[in-house]
Amino acid sequence: MSVTVAIDCMGGDHGPAVTVPAALSFLRSHADARVILVGKPDVLEPALGSAAGAFGERLRIHAASEVVGMDESPVVAMKNKKDSSMRVAANLVKSGDAQAAVSAGNTGALMAISRFVLKTLPGIDRPAIATVLPSMRGRVYVLDLGANVDCSAEHLLQFGIMGAQLVAAVEHVDRPRVGLLNIGEEEIKGNEVVKQASALLRASGLNFCGNVEDIYRGSADVVVCDGFVGNVALKTSEGLAQMLTAFLKQEFGRSLLTKVMAVLALPVLRAFKRRVDHRSYNGATLLGLRGVVVKSHGSADAYGFEQAIHRAAEAAANRLIERIGERMAAMSEEASA
Amino acid sequence: MSVTVAIDCMGGDHGPAVTVPAALSFLRSHADARVILVGKPDVLEPALGSAAGAFGERLRIHAASEVVGMDESPVVAMKNKKDSSMRVAANLVKSGDAQAAVSAGNTGALMAISRFVLKTLPGIDRPAIATVLPSMRGRVYVLDLGANVDCSAEHLLQFGIMGAQLVAAVEHVDRPRVGLLNIGEEEIKGNEVVKQASALLRASGLNFCGNVEDIYRGSADVVVCDGFVGNVALKTSEGLAQMLTAFLKQEFGRSLLTKVMAVLALPVLRAFKRRVDHRSYNGATLLGLRGVVVKSHGSADAYGFEQAIHRAAEAAANRLIERIGERMAAMSEEASA
Repeated sequence: MSVTVAIDCMGGDHGPAVTVPAALSFLRSHADARVILVGKPDVLEPALGSAAGAFGERLRIHAASEVVGMDESPVVAMKNKKDSSMRVAANLVKSGDAQAAVSAGNTGALMAISRFVLKTLPGIDRPAIATVLPSMRGRVYVLDLGANVDCSAEHLLQFGIMGAQLVAAVEHVDRPRVGLLNIGEEEIKGNEVVKQASALLRASGLNFCGNVEDIYRGSADVVVCDGFVGNVALKTSEGLAQMLTAFLKQEFGRSLLTKVMAVLALPVLRAFKRRVDHRSYNGATLLGLRGVVVKSHGSADAYGFEQAIHRAAEAAANRLIERIGERMAAMSEEASA
Repeated sequence: MSVTVAIDCMGGDHGPAVTVPAALSFLRSHADARVILVGKPDVLEPALGSAAGAFGERLRIHAASEVVGMDESPVVAMKNKKDSSMRVAANLVKSGDAQAAVSAGNTGALMAISRFVLKTLPGIDRPAIATVLPSMRGRVYVLDLGANVDCSAEHLLQFGIMGAQLVAAVEHVDRPRVGLLNIGEEEIKGNEVVKQASALLRASGLNFCGNVEDIYRGSADVVVCDGFVGNVALKTSEGLAQMLTAFLKQEFGRSLLTKVMAVLALPVLRAFKRRVDHRSYNGATLLGLRGVVVKSHGSADAYGFEQAIHRAAEAAANRLIERIGERMAAMSEEASA
């Protein structure tokens, strides 16, 4: 994959301590990929250390003098920090110096800046955020996750189109099954917007598999929903997983005997944990822009951040933007025919 | 608790095979409670067997000749089955022969019939469905779970009032903390309805603790949301829990060695399972009606169904309906003052 990824090295809870090692590890495992580390050179150079020269022209630093804070208002960040590492990374995608950008910075600012710098694709009203989650049958992509609340049926249709192209590009699935998150699988259920979206998706030419009640069952490759609903589903999942993990730890920690049991069961518990490791699923894709932008969890460690870089490179190498653009153009031709 | 519970013995996936043993077990553990078994006498009598006489007048059968099917349309069930066990149970609450009704039958029909027979309380536009879930700090009540999609801010306020009264009644919490399910804890976040609801809740005199992102963290005793969102949160939780359980089983079942580990860890795994056992949380309360109605999961076993009966009896014994009525009356007086 001959792709260049611009990395906002200053964003996230940990900044260069995480982003730089992740970038180096990514370069080691992708022999023809390139990265541009964006941020303050006086911070990045020491963080790189002796690795600076090891990758030749595959690795370079691009200076950015400012950093968008994790709690900073998107509007303020956009207006006042024109040389932020986040914005410079987006600019590098805009100029064609990079094919994808990755940031662990604040989601609202990243979306606002990416949208301002890169613009949306023709036919896309609102960019969406898509993530991948484990499912009973493999992996499932869910969007929107919070970029858009109060969506119309047309927005949900656009999410379906973008999600399907994402899965086609990065999972190499020919006609991904697209489902609509709804309460009950009967067509008559749901709120008004969802009912209308169901009709639009059914007529869209997508491989629409109807309503989905349970994201994790694996009955769809892409699950489409309003950003409010998607965000609730994601946060509820994170909360439940944390609670179950805490309960399991408490039960194994109750007595000396249960602690011994935990040690005995450790290989299995580790295998289980690996399987649902949220770090492997790190990296939410901002869809609908004229460029690939991936948002890492702010608290991601180097392993997690590397997955986000990988995800961005994979999407760019597989022509995600072109695919969405082509599909939207085809839709608009059909509509005007 | 000197309460009489009318039990729709014919509803649910298992009917009397589950409902009758559950009723008997409930009677055994609540010495002054009474039950009325509603259904077809020729089915109920053999199911009761020798237990028929053991509880004297604390147990009686009330005949109902029809049964609402699990997939039957609520409208059809209401129109054509006036002698269904579900409807007769509601009638017994209406007439005062029972103080609460329990059914494992189809949710839509139970809500429609309960609403038609019992009517809503003054000031309540729409009844809601509330359930209890485990949380990091104990238990949390969530409503609405699907009775109402496309809610207004006023509806969410009413849910908050009803939920707080439910927790006050059955958990004996003086001023339950009421949270609003939202994406992000900042007040500016969320969709339009949620923003308005936040303002109404803040001004309501309830112990409103603001936005809640994670139901399971235990930062609120009551979490209020639109029925669409609540249903998605519940189904997502069920799906995730099922998937994690399946993965854990698969990992423990991988080889002879891991199977041995499972046996060794069994006491801990059992303690963990008991703690999050969904059967203990069975029984969703229909709130806003002039009578207590509890809906059991259709697939509940006798232990689960007994919890639903217990929940109904507890709510009736603690004057749930009166509490909600008093609170609504106080609100309307304040508004007109």
